[in-house]
Amino acid sequence: MSEKPSFTQIIAARNHQFTPQIMRVAEREKRDPQFILDRVASGRIVIPANINHHALDPMGIGRELMIKINANIGTSPISSDLEKELEKLAFAVKYGADTVMDLSTGSDIAAIRRAIIQKSSVPVGTVPIYETVARFGAENICRETILQVIAEQAEQGVDYMTIHAGLLAGHIDLALKRKLGIVSRGGSLIARHIKRNRCENPYYQYFDEILDICRRYDVTLSLGDGLRPGCLADASDAAQFAELDELGKLVRRCREAGVQAMVEGPGHVPYNEIKMNMERERERCDDAPFYILGPVVVDCAPGYDHITAAIGAAQGAFCGAAMLCYVTPMEHLGLPQSEDVRNGVIAFKIAAHAIDVARELPGVREVDDAISDARAAFDWEKQFSLALDPERARGFRKRAAGNCQNDSRYCTMCGKDFCSMRINAELTGK
Amino acid sequence: MSEKPSFTQIIAARNHQFTPQIMRVAEREKRDPQFILDRVASGRIVIPANINHHALDPMGIGRELMIKINANIGTSPISSDLEKELEKLAFAVKYGADTVMDLSTGSDIAAIRRAIIQKSSVPVGTVPIYETVARFGAENICRETILQVIAEQAEQGVDYMTIHAGLLAGHIDLALKRKLGIVSRGGSLIARHIKRNRCENPYYQYFDEILDICRRYDVTLSLGDGLRPGCLADASDAAQFAELDELGKLVRRCREAGVQAMVEGPGHVPYNEIKMNMERERERCDDAPFYILGPVVVDCAPGYDHITAAIGAAQGAFCGAAMLCYVTPMEHLGLPQSEDVRNGVIAFKIAAHAIDVARELPGVREVDDAISDARAAFDWEKQFSLALDPERARGFRKRAAGNCQNDSRYCTMCGKDFCSMRINAELTGK
Repeated sequence: MSEKPSFTQIIAARNHQFTPQIMRVAEREKRDPQFILDRVASGRIVIPANINHHALDPMGIGRELMIKINANIGTSPISSDLEKELEKLAFAVKYGADTVMDLSTGSDIAAIRRAIIQKSSVPVGTVPIYETVARFGAENICRETILQVIAEQAEQGVDYMTIHAGLLAGHIDLALKRKLGIVSRGGSLIARHIKRNRCENPYYQYFDEILDICRRYDVTLSLGDGLRPGCLADASDAAQFAELDELGKLVRRCREAGVQAMVEGPGHVPYNEIKMNMERERERCDDAPFYILGPVVVDCAPGYDHITAAIGAAQGAFCGAAMLCYVTPMEHLGLPQSEDVRNGVIAFKIAAHAIDVARELPGVREVDDAISDARAAFDWEKQFSLALDPERARGFRKRAAGNCQNDSRYCTMCGKDFCSMRINAELTGK
Repeated sequence: MSEKPSFTQIIAARNHQFTPQIMRVAEREKRDPQFILDRVASGRIVIPANINHHALDPMGIGRELMIKINANIGTSPISSDLEKELEKLAFAVKYGADTVMDLSTGSDIAAIRRAIIQKSSVPVGTVPIYETVARFGAENICRETILQVIAEQAEQGVDYMTIHAGLLAGHIDLALKRKLGIVSRGGSLIARHIKRNRCENPYYQYFDEILDICRRYDVTLSLGDGLRPGCLADASDAAQFAELDELGKLVRRCREAGVQAMVEGPGHVPYNEIKMNMERERERCDDAPFYILGPVVVDCAPGYDHITAAIGAAQGAFCGAAMLCYVTPMEHLGLPQSEDVRNGVIAFKIAAHAIDVARELPGVREVDDAISDARAAFDWEKQFSLALDPERARGFRKRAAGNCQNDSRYCTMCGKDFCSMRINAELTGK
């Protein structure tokens, strides 16, 4: 039906071709290129790299690599401003986001996305149903509008797209029994479309055509979890796992079609169920990289959900997740502003780095050892420069030290007589 | 040598006496009083309740109970103000601290502590060596000054005291080999005393006399980890574990003497070593409640250590810790102010609650289910009132909603057309 020449990373890897993207990922991860190539070929690593995203510095996602984090940005119908979005992008990348998703639902989505892709050195992801609904209306979700939006976004250079193709008509009643029903925006839009029209999910129906588009531009599919649980009470239920099984089948269809695929995961999950959720995805989805949202481990901390989610994310990554979608302090309350993006990114960078250290990946603990050396040497400026957020550390110290900050040996925690670092220096004669 | 009549919770429990404190703990934990009494008798639960702390509402600490959190407050030589400390106390208790430690090292420590104990409904802990050094000077650490301070504090109503009696002369050289040596303030003061005077740790030497004082007032001993690791590179080393073995022996001496005891733990620990650390304490210290400081799981995030530590604390609690000492965003940078106390307490309350939920303790998830119901019903005010920090959640929503906040169905995250909660309501006909 459509031409199938196509260069994608998975096709190239299967042909034993060391693409520049594979070589770059090997360099960044301090791994042998063969290690990367083998896993790209099998689908255990994805490299989201649209052939039209020229500003991209390629990176890889897979549970054996460093844990990656994603920051969501984007406009809403009530707050739409290109400059603000570019500022959020800059904050996200500055503080360590490995990918960004543009979740804009406001006006002129294409123009905002174009600007983001042009500026972004990290992969850019989208949820195409948002633009479909924003441009054509929820009542006009159909083959033509779906494929048109996906094709336009692919041509523009979007590196990965969330497609909720695993949410089938038969799953919806399972989800509506829940305390919080369907909390995924894309999932709820699709479920309503299915219910209203007594049809099957069009993203499922036209999945082969979506794959054709993705193969043409090497768009990685992020198989969305439209039925992720939105509260602890709904976690790990029949709806969630029915969809997960379907996502596993779709992973295999992607790979057969030469399209890279990862799988999205929950959501709100009690801490004790995180490990089981990670293992189940790995088994059902043949070890496709698992891209988890949080998970949020308590429901009762609005205003602090970057922390509830970082706790869950660390455990998720420890148990096999490959990428963590950040959550900001504004989760459940409103859209994040730049400062919220900063707090969310750092919280998730901490979770990711903690697990990279725990898995003893090559070189990852060097920064921690160096900052510890700086602490022992009372070298505050070096400590700040090595910190995940130098400005914040410097600002806090300044607030604490007041007029004494010029004395580098002045410990702002303990004063002079109670400083263990001074006593150590005395005991070791340093 | 001293009179040994003494009422302590452990002695009473062994005599099958259901003390008011045991009954109150059973009520708060929704457990059978016999369950509590048995574990107080065996030392697996402690109830820090000095007979002179009249404002106390008793609580229990043990890995089978709800996870508890402690907030450190207290002055330093450069910042000493009673009103500020009482404000920190109020913040700590308001946001959910289960105990507070007064770590004052400034002037007039006794007066500040007296005020804190009078005001505090939660157990108050101290580290007596701080007052010893602040009042008598580090060069005058000796039997008399140690026992005098402990006796005065006990008489004043301190519920638990950190005593670094497990740090022995033979351990010090092990610790000085490390990247960061000894980071515990108390530990470093004692190590220097031992080195300078070529003696044994006086808290170890006079431990029986300390036990006599504690038994008289029912002071719980918190056996301090003076050799806790201060960076990832130093974690789980010979120094740390040599001291832990000693703490295990001291636990047994406490129990034989009718004194309640818990054990303090690390510190900076890589995520993958947390479980082993929890299991080792349980084995070596005969299941004495483990009171852990964090643990901090990365070294490179000064300014965000409430998050690095909450991630470690959740994993620690999941693997058996009983109480979590909070860490504030000011850790490694300066003394916390009230707002830092708030951020630290909430971060740790999240970690503790997440693990209570994970362990499915009676009733603990009710608040999460209720807040989820409020979300589904667009009942923002109920959501805020159930939140761990209502003011912050309310403030964030106000910032996001702007002029639209009077429309309760106005979802500040998604606007109108993209709100999954509205779509759910439509699909279920609610």
